[in-house]
Amino acid sequence: MSKSISIFDTTLRDGTQGEGISLSADDKLKIARKLDDLGVHYIEGGIPGSNNKDIEFFKRVKEFHLNAKITAFGSTRRKNSVAENDDNLQRMIDAGVPAATLVGKSWDFHVHTALQTTLEENLAMIGDSIAYLKRKGLEVIFDAEHFFDGYKNNPEYAAAVLAKAREAGADWLVMCDTNGGTLPNEIQDIVSGMAGNLPGASLGIHTHNDCELAVANTLSAIGAGARQVQGTINGYGERCGNANLCSIIPTLQLKMGYHCIPGDSLPQLTNTARFVSEVANVNMPVNQPYVGTAAFAHKGGIHVSAIMRDSRTYEHIAPELVGNKQRVLVSELAGQSNVLSKAQDMGLSLDPSSEQARKVIDKIKNLEHQGYQFEGADASLELLLREATGEMNELFTFESFKMLVEKTAGSPVVSEAFVKLKAGGENLYTAAEGNGPVNALDNALRKALLPYFPQLDEMHLSDYKVRVLDEQDQTAAKVRVLIESRNYTNTWSTVGVSSNVIEASWEALVDSMRYALLGQISRENDKKSSSEPRGLVNH
Amino acid sequence: MSKSISIFDTTLRDGTQGEGISLSADDKLKIARKLDDLGVHYIEGGIPGSNNKDIEFFKRVKEFHLNAKITAFGSTRRKNSVAENDDNLQRMIDAGVPAATLVGKSWDFHVHTALQTTLEENLAMIGDSIAYLKRKGLEVIFDAEHFFDGYKNNPEYAAAVLAKAREAGADWLVMCDTNGGTLPNEIQDIVSGMAGNLPGASLGIHTHNDCELAVANTLSAIGAGARQVQGTINGYGERCGNANLCSIIPTLQLKMGYHCIPGDSLPQLTNTARFVSEVANVNMPVNQPYVGTAAFAHKGGIHVSAIMRDSRTYEHIAPELVGNKQRVLVSELAGQSNVLSKAQDMGLSLDPSSEQARKVIDKIKNLEHQGYQFEGADASLELLLREATGEMNELFTFESFKMLVEKTAGSPVVSEAFVKLKAGGENLYTAAEGNGPVNALDNALRKALLPYFPQLDEMHLSDYKVRVLDEQDQTAAKVRVLIESRNYTNTWSTVGVSSNVIEASWEALVDSMRYALLGQISRENDKKSSSEPRGLVNH
Repeated sequence: MSKSISIFDTTLRDGTQGEGISLSADDKLKIARKLDDLGVHYIEGGIPGSNNKDIEFFKRVKEFHLNAKITAFGSTRRKNSVAENDDNLQRMIDAGVPAATLVGKSWDFHVHTALQTTLEENLAMIGDSIAYLKRKGLEVIFDAEHFFDGYKNNPEYAAAVLAKAREAGADWLVMCDTNGGTLPNEIQDIVSGMAGNLPGASLGIHTHNDCELAVANTLSAIGAGARQVQGTINGYGERCGNANLCSIIPTLQLKMGYHCIPGDSLPQLTNTARFVSEVANVNMPVNQPYVGTAAFAHKGGIHVSAIMRDSRTYEHIAPELVGNKQRVLVSELAGQSNVLSKAQDMGLSLDPSSEQARKVIDKIKNLEHQGYQFEGADASLELLLREATGEMNELFTFESFKMLVEKTAGSPVVSEAFVKLKAGGENLYTAAEGNGPVNALDNALRKALLPYFPQLDEMHLSDYKVRVLDEQDQTAAKVRVLIESRNYTNTWSTVGVSSNVIEASWEALVDSMRYALLGQISRENDKKSSSEPRGLVNH
Repeated sequence: MSKSISIFDTTLRDGTQGEGISLSADDKLKIARKLDDLGVHYIEGGIPGSNNKDIEFFKRVKEFHLNAKITAFGSTRRKNSVAENDDNLQRMIDAGVPAATLVGKSWDFHVHTALQTTLEENLAMIGDSIAYLKRKGLEVIFDAEHFFDGYKNNPEYAAAVLAKAREAGADWLVMCDTNGGTLPNEIQDIVSGMAGNLPGASLGIHTHNDCELAVANTLSAIGAGARQVQGTINGYGERCGNANLCSIIPTLQLKMGYHCIPGDSLPQLTNTARFVSEVANVNMPVNQPYVGTAAFAHKGGIHVSAIMRDSRTYEHIAPELVGNKQRVLVSELAGQSNVLSKAQDMGLSLDPSSEQARKVIDKIKNLEHQGYQFEGADASLELLLREATGEMNELFTFESFKMLVEKTAGSPVVSEAFVKLKAGGENLYTAAEGNGPVNALDNALRKALLPYFPQLDEMHLSDYKVRVLDEQDQTAAKVRVLIESRNYTNTWSTVGVSSNVIEASWEALVDSMRYALLGQISRENDKKSSSEPRGLVNH
């Protein structure tokens, strides 16, 4: 039997049913590209026509020419009607994607209670809908909702549903444990039975985590013959979530000899999981298997000394296989080599054994302890390293800012910023409005600096993220602001941390402009003659 | 074979190895009493002598006369020595508890690498230590560390370890998957083998969650004959955590016909899980199986309308069985039925076919379109619905606020807020500082309102989240602020949206206080006589 498993990601559809998970069309597009890099086979994008975000997603995703097949989700035709006139099926076709995930009922109780129709009509709804989508040239993945509850209640009917879907031409028959209440041995027995019933059919499994068994149930189904896994990144999904692909993929691939995604993309797993949690703005549990920051963290003294002798003593796999890393919680040994290799990347001369190197590493560690995170803020890190190696001339210096936000009932809120800077020996003092405090600060900064650095006109902020740290500390908690900026050729990210969201934003804004000037001026110099005045040159 | 399962809780020992989990002696005592109420059989309290907290715990826990047996954890005697002279064993005896959990090596690789001794000496260490503790009158639970990795490497030796422990008098032989890397079918095969090897022995299972399989592995072992489960509340533990008793107990008891804890204490499970997470000061994931706040939460419109007909359609058990409850989340994916069922929960009379209902649903949809999200902001939704049904009297009205943030190079940032309100016919105008703009606004609001509503002193903000919407729109993007507030008895969440983070925070802050007053006054009225002045009453 084949050891290849088809990975069907539904983070963008079932994942968004999770409490607190809400993704814009842009967020969905970013995640789709990341999933495609990881090498999943199907990306379920959403429900076409259900809302504007999904419509926009299906329209724009085509521009990316991804390798993964995009699928649109929808239900079988309405009862007592014809597939050709069904709005819902039409919207799936209009989405213009190569595959459709069609969900149909397989639990007799649901047919009676939720659909309020007959068992025969439900079979006809399934058969008609699949046949119609197939005639329209779509690949059809049939999701048999509540398959296991259905099988336990009425095995003949559940089996008849799959047989009908197959007969109508479905490419995949996916058994769903929609309520998440089935146990691994039940999954094993039922899937084995179906594999025997439908020789040669392509079977899939879709589980939920209501008993903390979604991963185990998926593995059980694979063992019994299923060859497609439906799940989500980080296990996002309704109620207790869907099957977590970040646990299933490495277990199948590293421990069970199956092939899911290209071997060389498995080390992207941790990064993918963290990226999706950032975009969804959901904290990843530190103890998440394989990809969490504590997944290979060692606290106990005995464990740590054994780990130093041989990491197999307390690690089930080498963390690098999934792109994660070992951490020893007592003494932070990591970091140093990363910083040095960053400096090297930037072409800075930083001798690893120098006092200079020790100082900047201490400074970075100290900042990280305060909540800074440089993994997503390369530009701020580069500015720090350039300062440390003396390869940084400041083009402007900060004197002060004031920010005023004023709101009167019935009138729009007003934000004004006042900034005082020094550049080229001059005092710059100016004010600007904005439609929010950060926008006002950005406007005031530009207004002050543009006469001196017209190239700032080419840059703009392209992303702004706020993350609250130590959430237990009420509104006195620290916030971390990440700003992404862009000009015609580059994108760069900067960070600021403070218990004051305005101050944190200001820090990241100022770094963003310092970095913009750094890059632009050095490019200017490459182009222009060396007789150019050198006063404002950085390096 | 017996269907009774012995529940061994190690939250206080292995649980505290988790990153970010730290418990004082008081915390441990509180948790021990809660675990005893739940009806677990063993409570592993810690490692006697390892630190003062554990010493204090063992001393003070005796005063509570718990039904559960308290156990002290420790390793086998040192190599090439005698049990009678071993400090560590002596400390376990001195703890004065009825049972000892003795951990010994069963993986030959570990005997060589970590202990650096011979296989024979390790067997002697195990045998001597158990026999000595038994002679001292202790019940002995033998934890065979790395049993499954050991068995896979050298099955004869792993089996010899268990045989030795049994021969020396151990009461329980517990097989540990210390690194969490074993799969359910392997557990099944190996535990079955051991059950055959050691007829009549009392076997136990101890698993870790590194592959997200700790619960499944525990169930596998039970199926194969194990009769003791070692785990922790909420799955706390080193790296990815231990087996989660909050998932194992209800699955064994409600779905598999085993008996773990008294049936009438199962509805205490949710409360126990939340209590432990509060004491440990760790946020519980909303999607935690059985006990999480989203475990029985429904978001999708189709799901919600089916749930209204029969809750078995999308719930694997009745949430009340574990002391949890159903929740209907309001989101753009859902429709009208969600909002109406919320109103019903709140005891509001909202006729589904009325103009009133249509209006409030349109309003909510419109707000969601602007970026509001009510699924995480029940209190703001309740305020909206009460407004719509005319069951809301405002206790204060907003006139204006000003927020000033000022930063001068070299000095700390200063935040000041000025608020103007009306309450009880009076104009309130006051100012306050804070360590950030939201904190300053919170302080100013309280300062203005406290003289009129002293009950606001009991509430505080417990969480603050900021999410940037439409991130492509630079700093002019909208932000959504979610605030969670608490008093002694309740937790509630509110939302604000604006392109101005200060205005969004203000909205959520004001809603939080409006809701606090709503609840508190209605409770006051329940307690006090009806002759109380009614001017400030809401409903």
